[in-house]
Amino acid sequence: MEIKRIITEIKKEHSNIQSVYFVGCGASMAELYPAKYFLEGNSKRLRIGQYSSNEFVHATPIAVDETAIVITCSLGGATPETIAASKKAMELGAKVIAVTHVENSPLAQNAHYVVTHGFEKNYAAKLEKMTKVLGLAVEILNEYEGYKYYDDMQTAFDRIYNLIEKAVSFVLPSAKKFAEEYKDEPFIYVMSSGATQQVAYSFSICLMMEMQWINSGSFHDGEFFHGPFEIVEKDVPFILLMNEGRTRALDSRALEFLNRFEAKTTVIDGKDFGLSSELPATVAEYFNPMVLSAVLRVYAEQLAILRNHPLTKRRYMWKLKY
Amino acid sequence: MEIKRIITEIKKEHSNIQSVYFVGCGASMAELYPAKYFLEGNSKRLRIGQYSSNEFVHATPIAVDETAIVITCSLGGATPETIAASKKAMELGAKVIAVTHVENSPLAQNAHYVVTHGFEKNYAAKLEKMTKVLGLAVEILNEYEGYKYYDDMQTAFDRIYNLIEKAVSFVLPSAKKFAEEYKDEPFIYVMSSGATQQVAYSFSICLMMEMQWINSGSFHDGEFFHGPFEIVEKDVPFILLMNEGRTRALDSRALEFLNRFEAKTTVIDGKDFGLSSELPATVAEYFNPMVLSAVLRVYAEQLAILRNHPLTKRRYMWKLKY
Repeated sequence: MEIKRIITEIKKEHSNIQSVYFVGCGASMAELYPAKYFLEGNSKRLRIGQYSSNEFVHATPIAVDETAIVITCSLGGATPETIAASKKAMELGAKVIAVTHVENSPLAQNAHYVVTHGFEKNYAAKLEKMTKVLGLAVEILNEYEGYKYYDDMQTAFDRIYNLIEKAVSFVLPSAKKFAEEYKDEPFIYVMSSGATQQVAYSFSICLMMEMQWINSGSFHDGEFFHGPFEIVEKDVPFILLMNEGRTRALDSRALEFLNRFEAKTTVIDGKDFGLSSELPATVAEYFNPMVLSAVLRVYAEQLAILRNHPLTKRRYMWKLKY
Repeated sequence: MEIKRIITEIKKEHSNIQSVYFVGCGASMAELYPAKYFLEGNSKRLRIGQYSSNEFVHATPIAVDETAIVITCSLGGATPETIAASKKAMELGAKVIAVTHVENSPLAQNAHYVVTHGFEKNYAAKLEKMTKVLGLAVEILNEYEGYKYYDDMQTAFDRIYNLIEKAVSFVLPSAKKFAEEYKDEPFIYVMSSGATQQVAYSFSICLMMEMQWINSGSFHDGEFFHGPFEIVEKDVPFILLMNEGRTRALDSRALEFLNRFEAKTTVIDGKDFGLSSELPATVAEYFNPMVLSAVLRVYAEQLAILRNHPLTKRRYMWKLKY
């Protein structure tokens, strides 16, 4: 398997890796988060960082050197800031792994290793990027420190794509209901916790703001009670992504509050998609982001249809230099 | 100085500290960010993490043990999630430093060391929390790895409170102008980069959503071009916090775009407040958050006056159990 081979090779040359940095822009930054969350939570020794590419280029952490692995990510492999970040990491001696859909893209050409992932084929293929990056994180942890649930993780990786396709197969009615209820909202809040935190972020800045021109904000649902909850009134529109895992208590508490004050709440819950019944319970939590992202995609598609605003419609992106 | 003494003492007992975690909720989490940004950017060896308290409690990173320093922060020292986080860190053997305004608060009683800070007296006192946490980070870096600009940092710490008071002394006219222009906006976006990233976050979730019930979203201005910028049209309201420092190029690029498409833009710029002329240029960047937070406070106060909505007005906080 390419992912295992890459990390084994890096380990052979560099037994002293001390840092792992995840670098990308927008959705391609957010899709690195499940791996970052996993590694930061489970490593005893490795330093972990996640950066938006241009910040990584302009304010590069001092520890980016020959003891670092840098994972850079861009769907089309042509994001200028991420290519620049990849180049910079290589100049500084780090081992660079590019994750991209396009094999010979500029990003792929500016990295030591390349992991390619699917995209168009189906919802599962769209989630390969996020899943393979988590795969890299699992291999890194296992090679450098050992990971007791490594085999469970492999089982989960074997099953996740089917689970994603199964999840999206039955959500169309709820997606249509969501679209009907939210199509005229001037703004929509999105929140979550744990591994799924940046799925909320990504849905907010990409699916809502970029692809639907709907005003949106996102935040961690543990933070909800320390500021944002004051905005809640009857019918204020929220999307809450609930995790099957350790931070579920946080998600539930936010839900209780939203219901108590009759916010307009749409819940997308990992528990409804068999995460902990079909994946080993020891690692299921780390796969909430994949399943919930796929389901959210269906929701966004239905919203786009009802609003007569295709997800590919842009004002500026792909059209202008900026 | 208490801060130096605390870290010297920890070093004496624990020469093998490997991780530093910053833990708080809402504004008290965001005010830890400048220290986190400094330490993650400048340390070659220490692992750095920042957590919302309840996530830290429910999904505690495995590396929180006797090799970790955990800095917990709560203004009144009574935030239940942060007290729980502090307790949990102590149980796991970490050295815990509580940062709070209230000396004998529950948080202070659940920590090995306490750093107290001012609040009511003036704008400078309000920024003591953030500044002292940065002070802790500087001492940690210097004790455990050495820091070549340590003396410059001390000079900056000596001058920052005067600089803050000087900054707020002349912004009233621009704050009044801002309030007049934004008072009827249904939502306001806030963005920044570098050390100031979470000042944007905090202004959005606390000053806007919590204290003014104005809808708001925030994001890193390097991320702006990878999603959020599609929302920009003539007169869409933004606040851009510009840094004097390495990530200024990112801030400037966002400003250029906002101006090009005639968004309603308010810029608050570290450069206008003498950061690099009055503080050593080697470390000035890390003090943008203190100066810009103080200035933003004046802006929020003027908005509150014009909107006839005091910053202390709440629907739920301090009133209900939740």
